[in-house]
Amino acid sequence: MGVATTGGDAPGMNAAIRGVVRIANSKGFEVLGFERGWEGLLSNRFRPLTSRSVGGILHLGGTILHTARCLEFKKDEEVRKAARTLELNNIDGLIVIGGDGSFRGARDLGKKTGTSIIGIPSSIDNDVFGTDETIGFDSAVNTAVGEIDKIRDTAISLERIFIVEVMGRTRGFLALTVGITVGAEIILLPEVKYENEEIFRTFKEIKEKGKKSGIIVAAEGIVDTHQLAVELEKATESEVRLSVLGYTQRGGNPSARSRLLASLFADEAVELLSRGEGGRVVGLQNGKITSISIEQSCKTEKPLELNLLNLARRLAA
Amino acid sequence: MGVATTGGDAPGMNAAIRGVVRIANSKGFEVLGFERGWEGLLSNRFRPLTSRSVGGILHLGGTILHTARCLEFKKDEEVRKAARTLELNNIDGLIVIGGDGSFRGARDLGKKTGTSIIGIPSSIDNDVFGTDETIGFDSAVNTAVGEIDKIRDTAISLERIFIVEVMGRTRGFLALTVGITVGAEIILLPEVKYENEEIFRTFKEIKEKGKKSGIIVAAEGIVDTHQLAVELEKATESEVRLSVLGYTQRGGNPSARSRLLASLFADEAVELLSRGEGGRVVGLQNGKITSISIEQSCKTEKPLELNLLNLARRLAA
Amino acid sequence: MGVATTGGDAPGMNAAIRGVVRIANSKGFEVLGFERGWEGLLSNRFRPLTSRSVGGILHLGGTILHTARCLEFKKDEEVRKAARTLELNNIDGLIVIGGDGSFRGARDLGKKTGTSIIGIPSSIDNDVFGTDETIGFDSAVNTAVGEIDKIRDTAISLERIFIVEVMGRTRGFLALTVGITVGAEIILLPEVKYENEEIFRTFKEIKEKGKKSGIIVAAEGIVDTHQLAVELEKATESEVRLSVLGYTQRGGNPSARSRLLASLFADEAVELLSRGEGGRVVGLQNGKITSISIEQSCKTEKPLELNLLNLARRLAA
Amino acid sequence: MGVATTGGDAPGMNAAIRGVVRIANSKGFEVLGFERGWEGLLSNRFRPLTSRSVGGILHLGGTILHTARCLEFKKDEEVRKAARTLELNNIDGLIVIGGDGSFRGARDLGKKTGTSIIGIPSSIDNDVFGTDETIGFDSAVNTAVGEIDKIRDTAISLERIFIVEVMGRTRGFLALTVGITVGAEIILLPEVKYENEEIFRTFKEIKEKGKKSGIIVAAEGIVDTHQLAVELEKATESEVRLSVLGYTQRGGNPSARSRLLASLFADEAVELLSRGEGGRVVGLQNGKITSISIEQSCKTEKPLELNLLNLARRLAA
Repeated sequence: MGVATTGGDAPGMNAAIRGVVRIANSKGFEVLGFERGWEGLLSNRFRPLTSRSVGGILHLGGTILHTARCLEFKKDEEVRKAARTLELNNIDGLIVIGGDGSFRGARDLGKKTGTSIIGIPSSIDNDVFGTDETIGFDSAVNTAVGEIDKIRDTAISLERIFIVEVMGRTRGFLALTVGITVGAEIILLPEVKYENEEIFRTFKEIKEKGKKSGIIVAAEGIVDTHQLAVELEKATESEVRLSVLGYTQRGGNPSARSRLLASLFADEAVELLSRGEGGRVVGLQNGKITSISIEQSCKTEKPLELNLLNLARRLAA
Repeated sequence: MGVATTGGDAPGMNAAIRGVVRIANSKGFEVLGFERGWEGLLSNRFRPLTSRSVGGILHLGGTILHTARCLEFKKDEEVRKAARTLELNNIDGLIVIGGDGSFRGARDLGKKTGTSIIGIPSSIDNDVFGTDETIGFDSAVNTAVGEIDKIRDTAISLERIFIVEVMGRTRGFLALTVGITVGAEIILLPEVKYENEEIFRTFKEIKEKGKKSGIIVAAEGIVDTHQLAVELEKATESEVRLSVLGYTQRGGNPSARSRLLASLFADEAVELLSRGEGGRVVGLQNGKITSISIEQSCKTEKPLELNLLNLARRLAA
Repeated sequence: MGVATTGGDAPGMNAAIRGVVRIANSKGFEVLGFERGWEGLLSNRFRPLTSRSVGGILHLGGTILHTARCLEFKKDEEVRKAARTLELNNIDGLIVIGGDGSFRGARDLGKKTGTSIIGIPSSIDNDVFGTDETIGFDSAVNTAVGEIDKIRDTAISLERIFIVEVMGRTRGFLALTVGITVGAEIILLPEVKYENEEIFRTFKEIKEKGKKSGIIVAAEGIVDTHQLAVELEKATESEVRLSVLGYTQRGGNPSARSRLLASLFADEAVELLSRGEGGRVVGLQNGKITSISIEQSCKTEKPLELNLLNLARRLAA
Repeated sequence: MGVATTGGDAPGMNAAIRGVVRIANSKGFEVLGFERGWEGLLSNRFRPLTSRSVGGILHLGGTILHTARCLEFKKDEEVRKAARTLELNNIDGLIVIGGDGSFRGARDLGKKTGTSIIGIPSSIDNDVFGTDETIGFDSAVNTAVGEIDKIRDTAISLERIFIVEVMGRTRGFLALTVGITVGAEIILLPEVKYENEEIFRTFKEIKEKGKKSGIIVAAEGIVDTHQLAVELEKATESEVRLSVLGYTQRGGNPSARSRLLASLFADEAVELLSRGEGGRVVGLQNGKITSISIEQSCKTEKPLELNLLNLARRLAA
């Protein structure tokens, strides 16, 4: 079997690699680890992974196999190179640990080479259809929450409003969960339109109730937060500051939950491959480990539970 | 409405109190907070809780209402006192935040007084039937995992085996989840018999494979860990040390997941009471918020997913 | 006695307030806490602080007295207002917890009113002359280091160079200590000129040695980090990313060292006031608690140990 | 040059190894790392360390060279073996990273073989004469403080007194610094006699003032804490619980301060060896990096600043 991590890194990728290797070993399979995601497949760069060589990595952030931004397999030549690598090394099945960009590549590669490929959803963005949670999401949420708990110290001490930008690429999963668990007064998501006036009104109402500080959690890229800060300052006569949490959300030791998901997903992925099944993405659905077709995962947009936004509003009242 | 926290404290209890008060307020209910669990009910000791007075507690461990060990309402006089308190203060519904001991008391009180009572499962032990997860469990798991990550540094540096005792009262939920997520070679649970010989054999095999350190995670109270350490040292000729994690597992800022559960449970609990429903315990089942009868929750033992133990074994190979 | 926190908040300010109140109480003094820094003095807004009311705050970030940006006492009217407040409340001595901006205000106020004022240096920037370390500096360093440890996971996994901007206002204390303790390849300080070419060369050399990722720690405001990222990317053909750590550095529970300094400084400050001495800033010099005149502290620029920069270079080789 | 870590592990040992290797390399020396402390010297087990091979370890707890309990070089045969190893590998100077037990061994070895040996004080116990602080001490303090901050949540919620046992071997440095920075009501040190009656009286007085919970920090091994808990419970009619922090204090990522000390000590140690000086222990004295003779370090007991105990008492009032 082969294994690779592709796309953005997420805490728990190493736990997933360890899981794949040890479960595969326990079933009699050998595992090759391709390096730097698809690049390892294109250039036949890999290292054999054994139960010993994946020792001591369970709790580490990042990925020992390295990763690189996802390319899609557009050119025939690339597909042929990757197919050649898989053939050369007698790879019967390939496990791809990554997000939805990775799975689009995996789907194409699977189609064109006939290799059995299983996707393990691992992304801090939680934007993979077919699983309620991706490996790394819980870790990134906890990192962001821990940082905003610190920012709140300053918000309260200096009676300021803070706009905190969190990651999430084009989706609001991270911002929504972080927002509700830090008690943000406003949560700005790509999935929901908002009006500046509404934000201003919320903070004016809050101020009248005697609350002198506040937190806005905004998903990256949906608003010019510098501009919003300036306008909010004018509208509320409060000091407003901006903080962009950035790459710390991708790193750090994985939370227990991310490690557990990584172990369960790895177990299911190897089980599928050992039964000869491919073209699937494993996942957690309604509390159970399961899988769906990679095709379906790629073409379906994962819905966001927007009723949480209403709950968040009532909780921050 | 009334609210009380009873039994052992767990991270996220404050988030649940905040949720109950703010959701209740948003529906037009006022909330009284009884202090020190049942004692507040017996002695009519309480404080009015408002949306403002529960500000700034979402992220704090412990409980602002204090708590005390659970008494069962055995004597008629006690029930009468508590009933009197509820009547005096016009309490239509009572929300009890605690574990299964708390819910047995709540069931008895409900039966004998006719008050609508809703239980919110909050316990680091996760031993409440009717919910896949209790508030505080994820926090305690992460605290224990963080500490064992540190102990592993010494285990590896000094090539030692560590026996780490975690909490869980009479159940193995905490030990099992912690054990699998730290990569323990052996996990000892109250639900599963084990033989010392098996433990010795496991570590001898590990040593032969070149692994010179190891971790045993043991649920508290099921084995004389001092004695086990002595015997294991003799059997393996490795140095063996014991660490009892203790009360740090109960404290600390709640994890994002414990805060989220607290918010969702509070929302459901207030919704039930506002509809006049009582005698229920809210919970998370198959990824959905739901509730079961308090009677059923009290009399049913929550099953432990023992297949995780097999997975843990293969992962630590 | 009076106490106020002014200027930017820093972890350990609460520990200092607690120390001032309890030590003052033990010597028979009562303490008034002025709110929002100088504003409380101007508007006579304060609360009496007792040993009980400062309980439970030792480990909390921020400041229970709130703070506000430092104004200098330029207008006579302001000085008169503050003097009036001090007189009205029979304040014999005032303790000001803050940074060098705060002390300039304190010096002016002391001169013009004759009140005994003692400064307790508390700032994440460590830029107060007269003390080797300010309260909060060690906490901010550890927060930044913890975050960069996480960023390094991504740097290594994706083989990228990260430019990380840390705080420090106009000085490089924070950047230098953070840079050396995270093993940064380059540290950019306001005190030291640098050439882009030198940075490019360093990373080219590193790449030739086989190191594919790296960290630049830059003090805020000394370089257009966006521009630097673009140019470095071109020069090294590596991916370069930027992360601005921001306000998390100001918050969070104070480190043990910040708490200890807060306690020792509070003890010395109260001791000085109780002996009738004013116009001084307490500090840590060569491992001993001492004090210098507030005049001297304000007019002298604290030197930065630039030989640490050479050590950092050799260590990151 | 040779380098070894001996005795108990401490956070920052890896930072010291990295420092020694990179500074030595920058001066043109090659470095061999002996494994498992003295055992590596006796059995000639080592690995060459290069600037690249010590990459990525700065922030990790434990020691990549492993360590083992200190033996003293009593038998001539052992000294001969170690001397032989040094000679075989052309070791001109040896750097020993460890605590005072390690330095007694180093002193004996130095005397009997004539090798230049420099000690770098690294121990969570801070019990090395000649330095105000050892590598790892600040890290262990912060770990213990973080854990007691969590225990305090339960202490307050359940209105209990907690006895918390911290490490320190035969000395009270760790207990004293931890005790003062967590605000312990009582600190029990091996250096100071105490009477149970005094402890009981303190907690009775506290209770009368309305404080219902409390913390005792006790250095390990100086009192039967189980027995004390029972008696204190009887005397105060409060619930009393015991928590032994244990081995987590030895592990975890080193604090910024421990990393900085490690870097500064490594620099000084290599500088001394490069000038041909041996038989010294480097240290931090009055805020400056310096060194004393290993002979003096071994035979002098490091004094504990007991006036801090008085300060702690007044602060916890």
